[in-house]
Parts: sequence; C-alpha cells; structure tokens
Amino acid sequence: MATLQAIKYNDGQLEILDQLLLPESCIFIPICNVEDAWAAIREMKVRGAPAVAIVGCLSLAVELRKLAAPETKEELCRFVKEKLDYLVTSRPTAVNTQLAAEACVKLCARLTDNTSVDTTAAKEDIIKHLEAMLADDVADNLAIGEHGARDITKKNATKDKLRILTHCNTGSLATAGYGTALGVIRSLHKANKLDQVYCTETRPYNQGSRLTAFELVYEKMPATLVCDSMAAAAMKQFKIDAVIVGADRVAANGDTANKIGTYQLAVLAKSHDVLFYVAAPFSSIDFQIPNGQSIPIEERPHSEMTHTGSIRTAAAGINCWNPGFDVTPAELITGGIITEKGVFKPDQLVPHQSN
Amino acid sequence: MATLQAIKYNDGQLEILDQLLLPESCIFIPICNVEDAWAAIREMKVRGAPAVAIVGCLSLAVELRKLAAPETKEELCRFVKEKLDYLVTSRPTAVNTQLAAEACVKLCARLTDNTSVDTTAAKEDIIKHLEAMLADDVADNLAIGEHGARDITKKNATKDKLRILTHCNTGSLATAGYGTALGVIRSLHKANKLDQVYCTETRPYNQGSRLTAFELVYEKMPATLVCDSMAAAAMKQFKIDAVIVGADRVAANGDTANKIGTYQLAVLAKSHDVLFYVAAPFSSIDFQIPNGQSIPIEERPHSEMTHTGSIRTAAAGINCWNPGFDVTPAELITGGIITEKGVFKPDQLVPHQSN
Repeated sequence: MATLQAIKYNDGQLEILDQLLLPESCIFIPICNVEDAWAAIREMKVRGAPAVAIVGCLSLAVELRKLAAPETKEELCRFVKEKLDYLVTSRPTAVNTQLAAEACVKLCARLTDNTSVDTTAAKEDIIKHLEAMLADDVADNLAIGEHGARDITKKNATKDKLRILTHCNTGSLATAGYGTALGVIRSLHKANKLDQVYCTETRPYNQGSRLTAFELVYEKMPATLVCDSMAAAAMKQFKIDAVIVGADRVAANGDTANKIGTYQLAVLAKSHDVLFYVAAPFSSIDFQIPNGQSIPIEERPHSEMTHTGSIRTAAAGINCWNPGFDVTPAELITGGIITEKGVFKPDQLVPHQSN
Repeated sequence: MATLQAIKYNDGQLEILDQLLLPESCIFIPICNVEDAWAAIREMKVRGAPAVAIVGCLSLAVELRKLAAPETKEELCRFVKEKLDYLVTSRPTAVNTQLAAEACVKLCARLTDNTSVDTTAAKEDIIKHLEAMLADDVADNLAIGEHGARDITKKNATKDKLRILTHCNTGSLATAGYGTALGVIRSLHKANKLDQVYCTETRPYNQGSRLTAFELVYEKMPATLVCDSMAAAAMKQFKIDAVIVGADRVAANGDTANKIGTYQLAVLAKSHDVLFYVAAPFSSIDFQIPNGQSIPIEERPHSEMTHTGSIRTAAAGINCWNPGFDVTPAELITGGIITEKGVFKPDQLVPHQSN
C-alpha cells in the first residue's frame, strides 16, 4: 500500500484529509481557494506547522491556476501578496507560513523587476514555486528516512529485524508527507527491517493513539499501541532496539525540545541500553540558541487533561500541570540527530552543513 | 475536613460512595442487606479487594442486626454461612472475601461448640466480629501512614515541606479508609509536612485522575494532576522528594507487583535521585514467592485503551498491549517498604515480623 497522503495535489486540484474526523472517519475534503484553506487551518482540519504552510500555499496555487492572467505583473503580485497576508492570519503563532509567504513575495519582486518575463510567465513561475513546496518537503523527509534507517540498521547489524518505539505523531499527518521519525520507521519497513513499532498514546492530546496509530494501520505496518506509562515495561519485555522521536526545536548543543514525555523516554532508553534518536529537518536546528534552557515551554489548557470530548475524566477542581513540550539533554540522544543531510552526534552539529 | 469515607457504617446502617458516578457526582447509596452488597460489588460501585470484602461483611452485619434471634445457634450459623457463600460469588477472583468468610465460619463453629454461649450472645459476637473488620483495616492504614510519614520526614530532615509523587489510587476508595500510599501522604499533610502531591493520571483506567484526584480535592490537599508522560519532567522541574506507590503483591525478596507504570516511575526516581517507597499492609507480602518473576501479570481488555466511554480515542484496527501491572525490582525501592509493622528495606523482610 502507498504511503498515507494527507495532502493530495494534482493539476490544480487540492484535497486534504480532515484530521478532526480521525480516527472515526477518513474523509478527504476539497480545498478550492485560499478561503477554504484558511478555514481548514483555523478549524484544525490540518495541523502541524509544515503541513499548514504547504496547504496554504497550495490553495493559492489552486486559485492562480484558475485565474485569468491579470493585466500587469504589479496587479498579479498585489493579488498574491494579499492572499498570503490573509493566510498568515490563519495560524499566527506558526512561523512556517510567514516564512513561506516572505519567500514568495521576494520571488514576486524579482519577477516584477525582470523585464524579460511577461505576466503569464510570471504567473506560471509563482505557481511552480508554490507547488514545489510539497515535493521538496517530502523529498527532505524521504532523505531523513533513508539516513535514519541506514544508521539504525548499521548499529544493529547482528539483528534481522528491529523493534522501534516512537512518541507523538511525526508522520504524513504532521508534515507534507512521509514524516520525520515515522519516516525513518517507514523506511525500515520498506527495507523489510521492521519487526514491530510500539507507539505511545501521547497524552493528553493522544496524537499517538489517534494519528500515528491511524497511519500505522493504514499502511499495515506491524504495530502495537502502548500507554505512556508502559514504555519501560515494553523496553524490558520486548527488547526494543531504538526509540525515535521528532523535534520541535534543536539547540546548537543538541538539546532537543519535543512533545512532553520525550525526556522521560530518553531517560528510560538510557537505563535500558536502548538507542535514542531524534529525527528532524536540518531547518529545525536553531543555532541561535546555545542550549535547551533558552527554549520556552508552552503550557496548554487544563481541559486537555480533564476531558475527552464531553466526558469528564478527572475530578472537578483538581489543579493540572500541562506542559506541551519538554527538553531532552543532548547527552541522552545516544543514537544521534537524523536530518536530510545525514545523522549527527549532538555535539557535531555545524551550521550550513553540506550534504 | 475529615478524611474521605467511602464506606460509612453506623449502628447497623451502611452506606457506600457509588464509585461509578465519580468524578461527575459524589453520591452515597444505602446497602440494606447482603443482596444490595452483592449487586453493588458486581456493578463495580465499590472496588478494591479490601473494600469489597468489608462491604460484603458489613452488609451481613446489617442483616443480622435486624434479624430476630433464631431458635438455635445451628440455625443462626447456617444463615450466616449461606449469606457468606453468596457474597463470595460477587467477585470470585478476589481472595479477600473468601478469607473473611472462612474466618467468620470458623468463629461460628467455635460459638456453636461453646455451650456457655446462648443464641443471642452468639449473634452479637458474630456482628461484632464483622463490624471490627472496618476499624481494623483503617487502623492498619493509619499505622502505615504514621510509619511512612515519619521515615520520609526523617530522611528529608533539612526540608520544611515535601513534594510527593504518587500513582494510581491507594486511598479511601480502594481500602476500608485512609489508604496505603495515599495514607502516608494524608499523614504528611496532617503533620503540615506536605508541600504538594503530584498524582499521575494512571492510564488507561484513569484511577489517578478520577479517584485519587477526587480524594485530594475532597480533603483540600495541595495537589496537581500530571499525565503519566510528565513524571520525569515533574521530578526535574519541581524537585520531587519521594515517590510513594501501593502494591498488589510483594515477593519475599521485595520485588513488587503494582499498577502498570510503577516500574517506570521507579527507574525515573532512581535516575533523578528521588526516594522510592512502596506502602502496603504486611499481608500483601507473599513469602511463598521468592521473587517478582513468579508473579503473573494480567493482560486487560484493549477497549480500556481505545475508548473513553463511548468515544473512540485510538485508530480502529490498532493492536494494543495492555498489561494491568508490572514488577518493580527490589533494588529500585530505595526508600523502603512501608507496612503497619514499620518500614523495611526490601532485603530485610522476614515472615511474622513483630511490631
């Protein structure tokens, strides 16, 4: 079966998997214009910073393909900039859409200045630029998957098949496709090297049980769901070979901020002699930040912990602590940091590393 | 505020807190006879092996108090035995009701043989025996609380107030009252030594968020609910002083079977230099079992992990691993095993230890 595609784009037609309906239903909805994308992002039908930026940009490509060519390049670029400014307001805290918009506006300026390009050609160039984002992100994820699978296989050369534990959702539902940590697991599976993947529920928002489990079932990978409290027992009982997680931000020294519970898994992996890997695009490494202490940790609403849908699961009046992320110290990342440029020891990260 | 009483017994009147309605509602229901108790146990309105046995025996005391004295002691004892046999069928896997029934039947035999006791006096003796179970269990728990609080306070003599993490429910809702691990926390609170108790959700059945959190709010203890994945982050951020958990069974060498997730907390406590305690009545120590390897681990239904009430929280078709318990090796129990007879190092357990 093909890899799950949560964002489908073909010849100016865009569809996205409505993640609000998961895991009950698997329904794709059409995105016909920028307004549709804005609403889908705001309503969380698509989530994950890279996925949000790509859906926004592709919705603009859809509109441009249907648009009769404007009279002038200035008019075309004004149209593009207005749409991008609007898209940025759909998820103001995510920087990815902002960065994508800035890159597109720069392209518009170059095209306007270039007198050898007419309006129709400029429009085509902008469309191609927007459409390329999807393939580029998937290509980076595929490279992450290959590098990671090769490294893990090499470090477990005596074993025929491997048992991997992962946390949260880092797959097709969080990226443009394929995924980071889950991409590495997909690559192991493709290489017939995956014995079993154990995915944690990832309380309180259940990205593991709702989203990762959905991807694993969809692609028929050998998979088992465990509660977050069962990680150590699973490491011991099933002799897990490696833990692979994603990253929200990696500091210059390799300290890694990721979904709450990651730090705990790294401590447990160390004490059970299990390799611990972080998989993330090289752009997630923030060389401006010397170490993890400078990474701010967002506290999220208590209702995520006290309710499941309309059902109260915690006693009324109880105080909650609900940090969205934690920081794993570099020394616990014993396997390495897997990027599209290769696998690095945390203390070997250098900006603008060449392939 | 007084300690939460989930089993209220006074002058032949028995009421129990309906745990099925927690945490939404806190409603006590009358238990007027053995049939009421049987139904309440079967429907899980009361749970926890000690609590189940005590509610059953007290329901028999209620009936005996209302009963006109039978003509003969033989008739009385036949009545008692029939009721006890019936009660044992309410939760056949729990051994506590069986043991309590056997003790009561032995008492009946002694009373029948004793010619100096008439039928009315025999009935009174049986009632007193049944009623004493509640007070005896609470007294043991109070002793556990005092021993534990004293030990923890002594080992943290430089600290004014302590931060404790606990797992699952070991309080008034699982015992006759006061509790084991939660009893120790109650004793610390009474001694004005509790800064904050962190209770884990305890997935997948949420005994922490539903039951322990309910008890903590009820008694206004300073408390914070955390997800099971947040234990390590909490130990690091809040500088937790001790982890205290209950036990389902302790082997002769101190290895301890308890709610799934306990082993993981013990590993995390060790790596964060946090004391780890087990609190349990001395009767939980099974000297017939040399170590934890001989303790069977029950696997529970997958639906506990895939659904919350009628809401599906995991992708359809995902395989689950749902062990109810895990075994913590004795060497990780760095604080000790707290019993009503005192606090013991795991390697210092001896049968029939005197007070």
